[in-house]
Amino acid sequence: MANGIGDSLLNRRSLLAGLAATAATAVAAGSAALPRSAVKSWDISTDVLIAGSGAAGICAAMEARKKGAQVLLIESLARFGGSSSMSGGVVYAGGGTALQKSLNVSDSVEQMYLFLSQAGAIHPPLDKIQLYCEESAAHFDWLVAQGIPYSEKLTQAKGLPMGDESLYFSGTELAWPARDMATPAPRGHVPGVPGMNGGRRLMEALLTNADALGVRLRAGVRADRLITESDGRIAGAMVTVDGEQLAIRVRRGIVLACGGFIQNREMLRQYAPQLFDCSVPWGNADDQGVGINMGIGVGAAALQMNQGFAIAPIYPPESVLSGIVVNASGQRFVSEDSYHGVLGDAIAYHQQGRAWLITDQHSSYDFHQDNFLPVAEGNGIGEIAVQLELPRGALQNTVAYYNLHAANGEDPLFRKSLSYLRPLQGPPYKAWDLSVKNAFFPAHTFGGLHTTIDGEVLNSFGEIIPGLYSAGRNTAGIPTAPYIASGLSVGDCTFFGRRAGGAAAAGHRS
Amino acid sequence: MANGIGDSLLNRRSLLAGLAATAATAVAAGSAALPRSAVKSWDISTDVLIAGSGAAGICAAMEARKKGAQVLLIESLARFGGSSSMSGGVVYAGGGTALQKSLNVSDSVEQMYLFLSQAGAIHPPLDKIQLYCEESAAHFDWLVAQGIPYSEKLTQAKGLPMGDESLYFSGTELAWPARDMATPAPRGHVPGVPGMNGGRRLMEALLTNADALGVRLRAGVRADRLITESDGRIAGAMVTVDGEQLAIRVRRGIVLACGGFIQNREMLRQYAPQLFDCSVPWGNADDQGVGINMGIGVGAAALQMNQGFAIAPIYPPESVLSGIVVNASGQRFVSEDSYHGVLGDAIAYHQQGRAWLITDQHSSYDFHQDNFLPVAEGNGIGEIAVQLELPRGALQNTVAYYNLHAANGEDPLFRKSLSYLRPLQGPPYKAWDLSVKNAFFPAHTFGGLHTTIDGEVLNSFGEIIPGLYSAGRNTAGIPTAPYIASGLSVGDCTFFGRRAGGAAAAGHRS
Repeated sequence: MANGIGDSLLNRRSLLAGLAATAATAVAAGSAALPRSAVKSWDISTDVLIAGSGAAGICAAMEARKKGAQVLLIESLARFGGSSSMSGGVVYAGGGTALQKSLNVSDSVEQMYLFLSQAGAIHPPLDKIQLYCEESAAHFDWLVAQGIPYSEKLTQAKGLPMGDESLYFSGTELAWPARDMATPAPRGHVPGVPGMNGGRRLMEALLTNADALGVRLRAGVRADRLITESDGRIAGAMVTVDGEQLAIRVRRGIVLACGGFIQNREMLRQYAPQLFDCSVPWGNADDQGVGINMGIGVGAAALQMNQGFAIAPIYPPESVLSGIVVNASGQRFVSEDSYHGVLGDAIAYHQQGRAWLITDQHSSYDFHQDNFLPVAEGNGIGEIAVQLELPRGALQNTVAYYNLHAANGEDPLFRKSLSYLRPLQGPPYKAWDLSVKNAFFPAHTFGGLHTTIDGEVLNSFGEIIPGLYSAGRNTAGIPTAPYIASGLSVGDCTFFGRRAGGAAAAGHRS
Repeated sequence: MANGIGDSLLNRRSLLAGLAATAATAVAAGSAALPRSAVKSWDISTDVLIAGSGAAGICAAMEARKKGAQVLLIESLARFGGSSSMSGGVVYAGGGTALQKSLNVSDSVEQMYLFLSQAGAIHPPLDKIQLYCEESAAHFDWLVAQGIPYSEKLTQAKGLPMGDESLYFSGTELAWPARDMATPAPRGHVPGVPGMNGGRRLMEALLTNADALGVRLRAGVRADRLITESDGRIAGAMVTVDGEQLAIRVRRGIVLACGGFIQNREMLRQYAPQLFDCSVPWGNADDQGVGINMGIGVGAAALQMNQGFAIAPIYPPESVLSGIVVNASGQRFVSEDSYHGVLGDAIAYHQQGRAWLITDQHSSYDFHQDNFLPVAEGNGIGEIAVQLELPRGALQNTVAYYNLHAANGEDPLFRKSLSYLRPLQGPPYKAWDLSVKNAFFPAHTFGGLHTTIDGEVLNSFGEIIPGLYSAGRNTAGIPTAPYIASGLSVGDCTFFGRRAGGAAAAGHRS
């Protein structure tokens, strides 16, 4: 596969010094974008430029290429794949996908829509959710056609399959209150490869196909700023290669697919303070928000900037879900069998980043793990409460109430699934630190540019910015806080990435 | 006072039709700002243009005028005063203001800083907070010098004084956990006029002085979009008067002080979904976010866009604070004697917008009020729980725990002030609906443009946009969520409004 700058760029190196100087002179501080008039000559041109080689960028590139456009895809890092290749590679799909049908799983577009529109954020982007639900089954067919291997195996176990199963409940569908909102169905579609390798496998297939389609893939090229015509249309982009600036002319459209900003501490502090405190920035080194800032620089609106996932992956093992999770008031606040993203959101966004998992002898972690450290241990709940410095009597009161009802198979507060519901009984009791700062608490950003369902970027007045497209975590998409299922982010990247690439290739809409 | 368009504008009406046509032709959809080249001629010019006549705009205008600049201030509505004139007119000030000293109130800049930096949002804007704390006493002197009447009277009562007292605890200083973070001091400085008239009185004084200083005040002129030079500098603004567009040339700087966006439903849904659901948009009709969108349109970053105040003004009477506030799980989640903004934030942002105040015979509202409707009544807590459909036994458990400790003068969970702490006892018990949709739940936005402490607007790359300034709720300022004290918003508007106006008059910085 191509890697590095191609001939067309290298042959124009002699122009670089002059161009960089021109740009620096003509553009005063405060110009978040360059006017076309400041660009004396172009170093290279293409129909469509894609910035970013994660799932969104690669899918956009493929679709643009299929529409007959000449496509140049640039990646700032030395390797292609973006944060998608670090992910589990799960794609959330339903309403009767080929895999669901072959495994006799019943599902409908309606139930999927009810789940996605009601179980997560208030006022989520319904236009994108609806389209996604309607077309995710066809989108899954497309993924299969890319040669991504899916096994005809379903697992009921919670958590990303460590075997080769390809369908599972990847979200909070079975936990309350989600299960009362929509009929649960397994919708997590993951490449049938063992371990945490789904993302890499998915990206390998997509990258191979993009290359075969004739997408020009170039690594080590960083997008810096957009270049605008005086009428607002996007004319191209300034990029940096080996410390030197190049001007790329774009005839049809640019797709910003540079990912989120979980690695940019200053942006996190300003935009997403709750994520700033999470212990593990979950994204590759260049999730610096540059694509988001390039878009904002030309007047784009950015939405959901405070949102992201903050996950507390307490299971597996599922046995710990018979414990209880409490806040600094010693109260339960969420069903313990909620999906990692729902539990993590409750802690990071609504409990000031602090919580503990309280286990008894049977629900304790029964193997060594460093994700959640034990910070209290004792023969009685009172001892635990004292060690955690919880308000006097609060944890005891919580446990007494919980045990009373759990003994009858009931959890009035959060209706934990019966599979995990039983009284806490039998020392030693332990408390495990679930705080965002001390626990293994991965976080990723969901804020980004405001786009139409076709990836067209909208300005602050709701108007399309001609020539500018975006997809993936560079945009405000389907993933919102709380993150209710694995696969929504890569699903959104691949699905809306394809649409953005197709729209960019069509270009020059009125 | 001047009201309406002045001669200099009216005399140029003949140019309007042609200009509007030119702009419409030259600027394609997607241009959130106009290029200077699209403006064929200017209808009017000024050194400094201020958009918005609330506290931020008027203070900016006065300071710019004092620096010798010609100042034109435009207001979109027919009346001057903005949302500030609808407010209580409280200015949060401390560290030893003249009024604090004359009333023998002890305070320090350090304690004020500890309160503002720790009791509210995580990762608040510390640069602005620090400067504000250091200079709020001098700023109060300035307000006094404007002729705003402050009485030398202090009240210990909670809530905006309905008498003529001018100093009170306007925030959550005395409630836990704030009172453990900083030594409480009364810092709410309010004009010494009875009732909810402080904002009007404050704005009357400021408007009179602005007029006397020679600020040209024009109502009925709506700012639409900014005009930019090709190097990014702000050249002027397009405004609308009587349905026709005018181009205003600005020689030194524009100050956007158009307020927030609490009246813009679409922006609320997209940026601040929690505020979308609050029953009472608390701001004047033109809090439509136009100034924020104008700034975003030229590449400005916007911060804190999800944040705002959402207040549940359950007191006065303070007697209800002996009741308890519970969530949908029947749990307490905040100290009931917290400031309205803290209680409201807890409900709107962290309890999915639902909560109830539970009172007994002595803590019930003892007069007719429509703010919070009674939705359950009974002789036992169990009856209330059933009527509210709370989880079985949960409210009873909460009350039993609360009563047990309250009888000993303790509130382990939230350390309610002893003045209000006693067991719930004696029917009839009642539940009052504190939900954001059904209760009187005023909301206002805190998101806005990213600015320096001098009101210079920053783009997405952290660079100053030359010629553009902003203040008040048009910016991301000191007020963050939770809103911890009345007076922070008008305080921020007046203080940083002055700085922005001064900086704009200085203009043309490198």
